[in-house]
Amino acid sequence: MALRHYTLDFKLSAPADCTKTVHGLQSIFQEQEMTETVHDTEGHGHLATFVGKKGRFVVLRVHTHGLVTVDLQCYEGDDSTQVDNLLNALETKLENLLRGIITRVKRLPAISRGATVDRYWPTADGRLVEYDIDHVLYDKDSAYQNIKILHSQQFGNILVLNGDVNLADSDLAYTQAIMGSGRENYEGKEVLILGGGDGGILAETVKLKPKMITMNLHIDEAVINGCRQHMRKTCGDVLDSLTGDCYQVLVEDCVPVLKKYVEEGRTFDYVINDLTAVPISTLPEEDSTWEFLRLILDLSIKVVRPSGKYFTQGNCVNLTEALNLYEEQLEKLSCPVDFSKEVVCVPSYMELWVFYSVWKK
Amino acid sequence: MALRHYTLDFKLSAPADCTKTVHGLQSIFQEQEMTETVHDTEGHGHLATFVGKKGRFVVLRVHTHGLVTVDLQCYEGDDSTQVDNLLNALETKLENLLRGIITRVKRLPAISRGATVDRYWPTADGRLVEYDIDHVLYDKDSAYQNIKILHSQQFGNILVLNGDVNLADSDLAYTQAIMGSGRENYEGKEVLILGGGDGGILAETVKLKPKMITMNLHIDEAVINGCRQHMRKTCGDVLDSLTGDCYQVLVEDCVPVLKKYVEEGRTFDYVINDLTAVPISTLPEEDSTWEFLRLILDLSIKVVRPSGKYFTQGNCVNLTEALNLYEEQLEKLSCPVDFSKEVVCVPSYMELWVFYSVWKK
Repeated sequence: MALRHYTLDFKLSAPADCTKTVHGLQSIFQEQEMTETVHDTEGHGHLATFVGKKGRFVVLRVHTHGLVTVDLQCYEGDDSTQVDNLLNALETKLENLLRGIITRVKRLPAISRGATVDRYWPTADGRLVEYDIDHVLYDKDSAYQNIKILHSQQFGNILVLNGDVNLADSDLAYTQAIMGSGRENYEGKEVLILGGGDGGILAETVKLKPKMITMNLHIDEAVINGCRQHMRKTCGDVLDSLTGDCYQVLVEDCVPVLKKYVEEGRTFDYVINDLTAVPISTLPEEDSTWEFLRLILDLSIKVVRPSGKYFTQGNCVNLTEALNLYEEQLEKLSCPVDFSKEVVCVPSYMELWVFYSVWKK
Repeated sequence: MALRHYTLDFKLSAPADCTKTVHGLQSIFQEQEMTETVHDTEGHGHLATFVGKKGRFVVLRVHTHGLVTVDLQCYEGDDSTQVDNLLNALETKLENLLRGIITRVKRLPAISRGATVDRYWPTADGRLVEYDIDHVLYDKDSAYQNIKILHSQQFGNILVLNGDVNLADSDLAYTQAIMGSGRENYEGKEVLILGGGDGGILAETVKLKPKMITMNLHIDEAVINGCRQHMRKTCGDVLDSLTGDCYQVLVEDCVPVLKKYVEEGRTFDYVINDLTAVPISTLPEEDSTWEFLRLILDLSIKVVRPSGKYFTQGNCVNLTEALNLYEEQLEKLSCPVDFSKEVVCVPSYMELWVFYSVWKK
């Protein structure tokens, strides 16, 4: 049983009259038969808590600097009309008590805590966003990561890896962007896909009649297994078999595979890296992630034909530091490269995303 | 000074050992010199509150049904390393204490309450979303509504009317959709825009060399005044003057204007209704909104030429009841019509939106 957490905040142009505010609300809490405790905050405003029936709990704070905050927690199964009425009563009363100094009243949608289906999947730039997720289709801890496929009313099925929203049925824009936004001709070409376990890139590339697509899934076959079953609007039937007329899927660590290609002198017209997002943190402990990233990048560029292109996703547009660091990596490759970037709206991401095209100078 | 509100929740496969959990955390709160109060919940689990220095406040609840919730409130200016350390200590300790029965640990991005710049603008379907808004460019209460223009790092400037996100610099997709998604030829045509105060539709239509555009802003000139100054990426210079080579902007109630057109037999090739969203509530008190909507719709369709089209936005794709009600209105018009609809991703909306094309049978 989840906890519903409501907040109701009054931002004020002047400090509230604490005694008047607290007394003014008293009858509401008394009517609810809530037990009040007043806490000593050592000069940080008035803080009172109220425990009511059915596990209801209210925190009332009259801050010293022009802010009144109310928290109300109740259980999911509680009578929502009663709870709404309590909140409405508090809001109306506070509007009266604070009349003339209110600059903003904010009552956020209740946060659901501990629900069976988790609807909160923060963006890459750390913002709180609630999704319209109504059920969990797949939830598996593989040896490498947690893999979830969730159903969103509007975005369709969404692949979430280690808590990061990867791709939804609604996100053809992602696949098109990482394939060069429709500006490339894949017919008769040789293509290497790194990662891409949701099958979206493979499914779209197959339609363009390439000569051969090699998809190197890296190591986690569980992603393919989940997507084959639950992401069919994205992958169609391309993941039903690991080989097709013009494609093969390898489930192995892509570093040795890339090294072998380099040794053999094998090259591709297009290399599409859909492996991982650019590391967000730039702390020293993340050095190894950057090392790995640069290794993959360097090997990938080596197997791109001089006339070919390397495509990858970058990060959300707000993480400029991470994007800059990525672009610095591009300067350090063993083959000199040029690049362009594009900002794309991927519907289920709730943030704009940067995609890179890279080619040999 | 805003309040930062952190939540940390442990969802469990079995009820937590309450005594063990509470005792296990004690040393952390003691170290912080926090004053504990244990509240009687009448059988609804353990509930303790802790008041610390600098206005810090923690609520610890060990619920009876397999959930532990922690709230931590502190002020915006508080030492964030100290606060993070406290949360980390609680998380690590709880992970140990609850080992073996944890099904999910959730620590949401902190909610900022009472901040100068409000970053929370819930979606039309009532979900909590945080925007990357960093400053307020315009904030005015006109006689009709509150008009805000906010700056988002990724979406650019955003027009917000009465708390509803209307349009951002990033949202050309909205304007294109409400103009027929590029499938229409506006050259030499007569166009009527209802609403459209941000100037986006006018700016895009002007580029297509129509014969004449009449934009009937309805009543609130303050919208144009704000947008002229702060939404120039959307409106360009079209709002600098209320008349141009091929357009005129009327700031009057659109109902009498439409009635006059009907009386005069004046018609248009395209009527674009950008006035208001479909009412979300279907309660009796909203009847008048639907009446108004149907009146506008009926008059608008009357002034569309038999070969012409009427375009409008509907609502977010999840509000199926409101969309169905709108479609029912289309059945009740004095001229019989057909319609098509399209679901479009408008970047700053953080939800998919439905647009309608309507034409006379």
